[in-house]
Amino acid sequence: MTNKVPDRASDAMMRRMPAYYRQLRDLEALGFIDLSSKDLARRMNLTDSQIRHDFNAFGGFGRRGRGYNVALLRRSIGDILDINRPHDVIIIGAGNIGRALAQYKGFPDSGFRLKAIFDSDPELVGKKISGVKVFNISSLSKYLAKSPTDIAIICTPGDKAQALVEPLAAGGIKGIWNFAAMDITAPPQVVVSNVHLTDSLMMLTFRMHEKEVLEENKSWVSSDVESKP
Amino acid sequence: MTNKVPDRASDAMMRRMPAYYRQLRDLEALGFIDLSSKDLARRMNLTDSQIRHDFNAFGGFGRRGRGYNVALLRRSIGDILDINRPHDVIIIGAGNIGRALAQYKGFPDSGFRLKAIFDSDPELVGKKISGVKVFNISSLSKYLAKSPTDIAIICTPGDKAQALVEPLAAGGIKGIWNFAAMDITAPPQVVVSNVHLTDSLMMLTFRMHEKEVLEENKSWVSSDVESKP
Repeated sequence: MTNKVPDRASDAMMRRMPAYYRQLRDLEALGFIDLSSKDLARRMNLTDSQIRHDFNAFGGFGRRGRGYNVALLRRSIGDILDINRPHDVIIIGAGNIGRALAQYKGFPDSGFRLKAIFDSDPELVGKKISGVKVFNISSLSKYLAKSPTDIAIICTPGDKAQALVEPLAAGGIKGIWNFAAMDITAPPQVVVSNVHLTDSLMMLTFRMHEKEVLEENKSWVSSDVESKP
Repeated sequence: MTNKVPDRASDAMMRRMPAYYRQLRDLEALGFIDLSSKDLARRMNLTDSQIRHDFNAFGGFGRRGRGYNVALLRRSIGDILDINRPHDVIIIGAGNIGRALAQYKGFPDSGFRLKAIFDSDPELVGKKISGVKVFNISSLSKYLAKSPTDIAIICTPGDKAQALVEPLAAGGIKGIWNFAAMDITAPPQVVVSNVHLTDSLMMLTFRMHEKEVLEENKSWVSSDVESKP
């Protein structure tokens, strides 16, 4: 089975891959062996053909007439997402978000190993959060030189974030997950994900509003029908 | 100008709306008056036609030959996202994530007003976080009965989340933003957004891996070319 990354996976398709992965991991833990695309579709609120289309884009994982093997499919999607191998991670900024992420149990479950936390507050340096040592931010480059690291999670105030990119890139970091309130840019060899928590909240109010509008239209239609002789 | 919600806005399009909104808010603050779809496209790493297509789905906001008025466009997209009016919000669970969200400056900027925090820890009850009072979780229903609230943000441990849905729905909550490590379901009148922080991290490793594969292919191609006589 070859898992090719398609030339141009749609954004929406790629966003579904982690959800497939979680769903399959849960099903595997529950003891499921085989699964039809129909079953998977029902569990994920998608259509049967959407799922087959998504998987075909990666070379297809199905066996004619037998559906999917849950463990194999989980592993294949894990390969695509590249989470079947561990990633070493550091967190920069031990404020509330940094602490929350340091203690987030979902990360170690997906192979993300938190190796160090960095902060500029002398009261925090030397202490441990979630069993992980807090280093002085001034030692970041020295740390990266001797401890190759895949991903840096930036949880500093917005105005401190961009200045971190140069030492992180120079230190061999390949991905930055940025929770600071200001977007950052990085050299081409570093992948950046700027997280916008408000976007998710705006999507929620959009859907709340959409539901309200639909309800209003519905009642308008039914009162219109009722008013007819 | 009518801002209709299209019958079936694509998921990807809807995900772009908050990004448009943020971009336009920034441009408005910088004093921009008019903007071409080309300028907006360049700033957002999208294509010109993608932007026109997105906006046309909502009835179009452009004036022939003059591009977009930044303030009007921001307002129109704000109407679609329903963030031009304030939303009252409560947070349930004052652990690290709950505290981090309580202090997140992006929320008040978008009209999300944190009115109360709930927790079961007697040491926290009565205290204030970010100027907002922490109430005992046992008083949740009483609070909602006298303080109509739009959105509840659940930041409890995973196994406590689902049990909150019934009192929240009965109390008139219309949207739940769930950060607990377990997905919840809610009655049809309540919109739920289950947040999966690991999904975002998996998308990052996917893109890191994709870049790696592309680089490998590139070096393979060039060495192949070089080996030719």
